[in-house]
Amino acid sequence: MTARHGARPVIGLDLGGTKIAAALVGPDGTVLARHTGPTPATRGAEAVLDALAAAAQAVGADAAGAIGVAAAGVIDPVSGTVVSATDTIRGWAGTALGPGLTARTGLPVACDNDVRAAAATELATLSDDAVLLYAAVGTGVGGAVAVSGRLLHGTAGVAGHLGHLPSPEAEGLPCTCGATGHLEAIAAGPAITAYYRRISGESADSLHTVAERAARGDGLARSAVVHGARAAGRTLGGLANVLAPHRVVVAGGVPRIGALYRDALCDAFAAELMPPLRGLRPAAPLGGADAAVLGAAALARTLSPRPAHTTGAQP
Amino acid sequence: MTARHGARPVIGLDLGGTKIAAALVGPDGTVLARHTGPTPATRGAEAVLDALAAAAQAVGADAAGAIGVAAAGVIDPVSGTVVSATDTIRGWAGTALGPGLTARTGLPVACDNDVRAAAATELATLSDDAVLLYAAVGTGVGGAVAVSGRLLHGTAGVAGHLGHLPSPEAEGLPCTCGATGHLEAIAAGPAITAYYRRISGESADSLHTVAERAARGDGLARSAVVHGARAAGRTLGGLANVLAPHRVVVAGGVPRIGALYRDALCDAFAAELMPPLRGLRPAAPLGGADAAVLGAAALARTLSPRPAHTTGAQP
Repeated sequence: MTARHGARPVIGLDLGGTKIAAALVGPDGTVLARHTGPTPATRGAEAVLDALAAAAQAVGADAAGAIGVAAAGVIDPVSGTVVSATDTIRGWAGTALGPGLTARTGLPVACDNDVRAAAATELATLSDDAVLLYAAVGTGVGGAVAVSGRLLHGTAGVAGHLGHLPSPEAEGLPCTCGATGHLEAIAAGPAITAYYRRISGESADSLHTVAERAARGDGLARSAVVHGARAAGRTLGGLANVLAPHRVVVAGGVPRIGALYRDALCDAFAAELMPPLRGLRPAAPLGGADAAVLGAAALARTLSPRPAHTTGAQP
Repeated sequence: MTARHGARPVIGLDLGGTKIAAALVGPDGTVLARHTGPTPATRGAEAVLDALAAAAQAVGADAAGAIGVAAAGVIDPVSGTVVSATDTIRGWAGTALGPGLTARTGLPVACDNDVRAAAATELATLSDDAVLLYAAVGTGVGGAVAVSGRLLHGTAGVAGHLGHLPSPEAEGLPCTCGATGHLEAIAAGPAITAYYRRISGESADSLHTVAERAARGDGLARSAVVHGARAAGRTLGGLANVLAPHRVVVAGGVPRIGALYRDALCDAFAAELMPPLRGLRPAAPLGGADAAVLGAAALARTLSPRPAHTTGAQP
């Protein structure tokens, strides 16, 4: 836990329900080695920790100074424990992810959830004092906030839940968190699909179907896409007034459905901004499909941002 | 600019349109001396800087290690310049407040707007890693966010404008910033008064009048107060989900109108919270009428939080 690893490569691990992606990343951000293997999800937490350690060995744990892990669910980045998780991996909630991986590899380990890890890839491009507002719009609406190069965790590690702000477009709609009227209830992918079904009376099994109909000129499908985009853009614009971020990112599967969505989101965002912020525009995320594994490597680097430092502490 | 002032008293100055309040504050927060004098507002910026320096001398600039100044308007805390201001003080916008006061006193000077300065008084009560969400509801709706002991300034120094988030209660109402539907347009004092006039058809010159009628049982006056409180509480609850603050403060003149307002705000706040945050409740500000001058002293202390450090840099 006292290795001087700031100038050494670090390992990023992206733990998904079906596969584990690993990368050895040099100090300059170059990917030096990659490995992908299956997640032994049905064999339980110990087997998954073994598989993570094996993936780290496969890309070169001997050369690395630290490991970062991106995982779904609520991860306590201080203790490295899985606070809560779905049943995708048997017995995963409660697992001491960080300590278990340190015990297997001898390396310091930084853990966080996959959205925050993906947001960490953006930090390298920002100045030390910058504020980052990162939204992830997919099956839910999540996100991350970073200040001065650090991802905000807040009390109970909850910070970043951008989907749980009141949204005028969501008035009266039940939210997954138990409240009503939150952004997620109108802007998440399934919420846009449900809104389309309500206004059209048509069946639609997924956002993909709605997007296809919108692309073919279906006016109600277009309305549903624009409505969800507008709700997300307005809330993000309002949050920009609160946080005055230097960079705003909109990631996740929903923005990838097309320009109709992205343009509506950007227009709604811009309309909310106070005059000093009016040059600000939401950007696409860096890293693409690699974002989580590269973000995990970026988390590892936060364990020791400068070559001369030594640390075993979590950020 | 290299004085070791961490363990020395600091001076807080609260610059208002009519008076300047000064306090010499010891390392333990004890007020050692106080002074209040008139603001020579009609005589221009140089005269006001002279008066600020005189107020600092009056409480004991010789004993102090640093000065903090709280002033209305947009203050750039890095350069110490007044970015914009109303005409209350002639020629005040553009004044080099920090450098002008350093030139007159020989002391390092930290400046910020009065809301952020008041929020700084809360920081001393929080742990180093804590997140603070501070709202000020008065003639406008402003606020501050602090992370890890530092007030967030963000790009263009704009951070903290909590009043410019979309609010379901404010749909369609014009906001002072030029957008529509923002919280300030329904939750600020004048906005509550205007809403009462709209729903009642009665005249009312101020929130004080509305609050008096509410206290006498006027149902529409009560509705207006609750409506504004509910809008503020909902937005603050949603922001709590984003920032996961360790402390939430609601300051300003509007919450002082009574328990009807405060109870409605707290209930609306609580209803928005995600499960891990459900113990969180908004608190009244520390410092009372002293908040700005004590906050200015707290700003001064951020110039050198530890006795052994030396600094001339702004936070």
